[in-house]
Amino acid sequence: MRAVVRRDRRLVCDEIGELEPAQGQVLVATLACGICGSDLHALHHMEHMVELGRRGGGGDNGFDPRADTVFGHEFCAEILDHGPGSAKTLRAGTRVVSVPATLTAGGVELLGFSNRLPGGFAERMLLSEALVLEVPNGLATEHAALTEPFAVGLHAVAKARMDANSVALVVGCGPVGLAVIAALKAQGHGPVIAADFSPRRRAAAEKLGADVVIDPAQESPHERWEALGVPKARAAQQMIRMMGGGFGRPVVFECVGAPGVLQGLIEAAPAGAQIVVAGVCMETDRIEPSIAITKEVELTFVLGYTAEEFAQTLTHLAEGVIDVSGLVTGRVPLDGVAQAFRDLGDPEAHVKILVEPAA
Amino acid sequence: MRAVVRRDRRLVCDEIGELEPAQGQVLVATLACGICGSDLHALHHMEHMVELGRRGGGGDNGFDPRADTVFGHEFCAEILDHGPGSAKTLRAGTRVVSVPATLTAGGVELLGFSNRLPGGFAERMLLSEALVLEVPNGLATEHAALTEPFAVGLHAVAKARMDANSVALVVGCGPVGLAVIAALKAQGHGPVIAADFSPRRRAAAEKLGADVVIDPAQESPHERWEALGVPKARAAQQMIRMMGGGFGRPVVFECVGAPGVLQGLIEAAPAGAQIVVAGVCMETDRIEPSIAITKEVELTFVLGYTAEEFAQTLTHLAEGVIDVSGLVTGRVPLDGVAQAFRDLGDPEAHVKILVEPAA
Repeated sequence: MRAVVRRDRRLVCDEIGELEPAQGQVLVATLACGICGSDLHALHHMEHMVELGRRGGGGDNGFDPRADTVFGHEFCAEILDHGPGSAKTLRAGTRVVSVPATLTAGGVELLGFSNRLPGGFAERMLLSEALVLEVPNGLATEHAALTEPFAVGLHAVAKARMDANSVALVVGCGPVGLAVIAALKAQGHGPVIAADFSPRRRAAAEKLGADVVIDPAQESPHERWEALGVPKARAAQQMIRMMGGGFGRPVVFECVGAPGVLQGLIEAAPAGAQIVVAGVCMETDRIEPSIAITKEVELTFVLGYTAEEFAQTLTHLAEGVIDVSGLVTGRVPLDGVAQAFRDLGDPEAHVKILVEPAA
Repeated sequence: MRAVVRRDRRLVCDEIGELEPAQGQVLVATLACGICGSDLHALHHMEHMVELGRRGGGGDNGFDPRADTVFGHEFCAEILDHGPGSAKTLRAGTRVVSVPATLTAGGVELLGFSNRLPGGFAERMLLSEALVLEVPNGLATEHAALTEPFAVGLHAVAKARMDANSVALVVGCGPVGLAVIAALKAQGHGPVIAADFSPRRRAAAEKLGADVVIDPAQESPHERWEALGVPKARAAQQMIRMMGGGFGRPVVFECVGAPGVLQGLIEAAPAGAQIVVAGVCMETDRIEPSIAITKEVELTFVLGYTAEEFAQTLTHLAEGVIDVSGLVTGRVPLDGVAQAFRDLGDPEAHVKILVEPAA
């Protein structure tokens, strides 16, 4: 079958071996699979990612970054066949999504970061029958494929300790930031301030329900805290509390993932802010701990989502609680993936590009 | 009156002006005042501390690091006189402690870091009548003077989200680490692992109730997590939860405050750990955010204490819930302060030195 293979830090269309579903597995045809920012980074820096992952104790099941890899972990697929001894609860032809992890006799393979099983930039994949979820309610394939990136947002919000009056600032409105905005609004939180230099991303943030959308080139989003009821300085906060008053806990979502952003937020956010770090900075970063201490900020680093958060996100999408229409800005067949990776370097060009292996 | 003055980055004994209590103030005689690690740092690096404090939005009421300063913010004192219009609830001769902040017509002066009011390395101070607390229950003066540093520990523990089965690791058993250990044990938490390279500090940790005391030169304290029921790897934790099992939330208290310690903890602590950063690192530090993300750690930066935590600590000391006997390892008159600062550079020489201005 055909697939886009990462080989020698390049993406090449090639034929790879056919797949045979083992016990507990289903063979699926990939209908659509989103390109993630982590794919863009991994194309060139996989070795470093793997090293950092190992230092973090993340299990990668012996993944070799020098060997062939088929990316793609944000997919919607269609069941083709079942492995032996399968429950066959979902029949062939059923559209499904799944967390991108397949149980095998040798351990858990992370789809999109495995040398043994292909991710979604291939015509077919092997999924675990126990993990697949039927796409409900006639949800469009292109929207079902957004379950995975939007689950990341739900998880980040679950790790935030919002209170009834919390003000949330989302810094960076790429796919992670947009998913956070959607999850915040799905849960009734607000006001939500969103900031991004890109007009296209700001428009997407607004469409997903951000209450205040800011171009940081024009105005620091941190200028808005006081107007939204959150004093920035510790002394002012203490004075308000001493007088028996209160204000919502400020929560900042770091959805950029570049060096320097975190320290910028530590310095600019209100005292007592929780900074939920959802943007993945793969480089060494510098912080000033004493400023974080003076302000008593909290840095909550988050990754991925639980199976429940993934399922909840699918429900949100299917029931229209989160409206993702317009977010898919490009569709490419397998032989267009390499160019799509280049196109995604420009934040104005696209929000999300889907790969359609059958196209 | 006599005081130890910081002048040109040196400590000199000098005569300074007499004090006159204004409305709402009391004049006190300093009985004993501890030397804090922040004093040692401030002697040489006050300008940098002030700059970082301003970047953190901490109000310093126009403090000028180039002008004369009398350090000392961990004190026990005796009331000498009351300002006009005072309630005089506490009579002259009463021993008191106070959070080191005095309300003045010009704002709040932080005692020990003020150009206008002297801290505890002076024969007399001005305190706010509304903030002083009577030393209860015959608590010894030298122990009452430890209220301030031990309140720091209570605050750090209050910011930790311990659960019933939490295992706590205290890294660094200087005064901050010891205060954290005492607060953990006062609240019934455990097991508490304590780690320090210094035998003297390890002995103090043990005396304050640490359950496991480790010399990091011999063994990494992180080797103990699994034996105490906390799996370190995220995959192992997920597996246990998937099987319906559980384990206490791992909480690490960073009480060293030197560059590199934080990243070492991010890398060595169990996945999902909360790292409460109570050690004040005054230099730029480097972290690997992607490792913190892989492990979903949380960094909770903490500073100081509330008035309630300060009062609670005084009660803990007075009622013997925290036994600080043996922690004061030196006493010096004003003209011995400069030498005491030098002596405190050796962790084996001392735990806490008190300045006794009347001696």
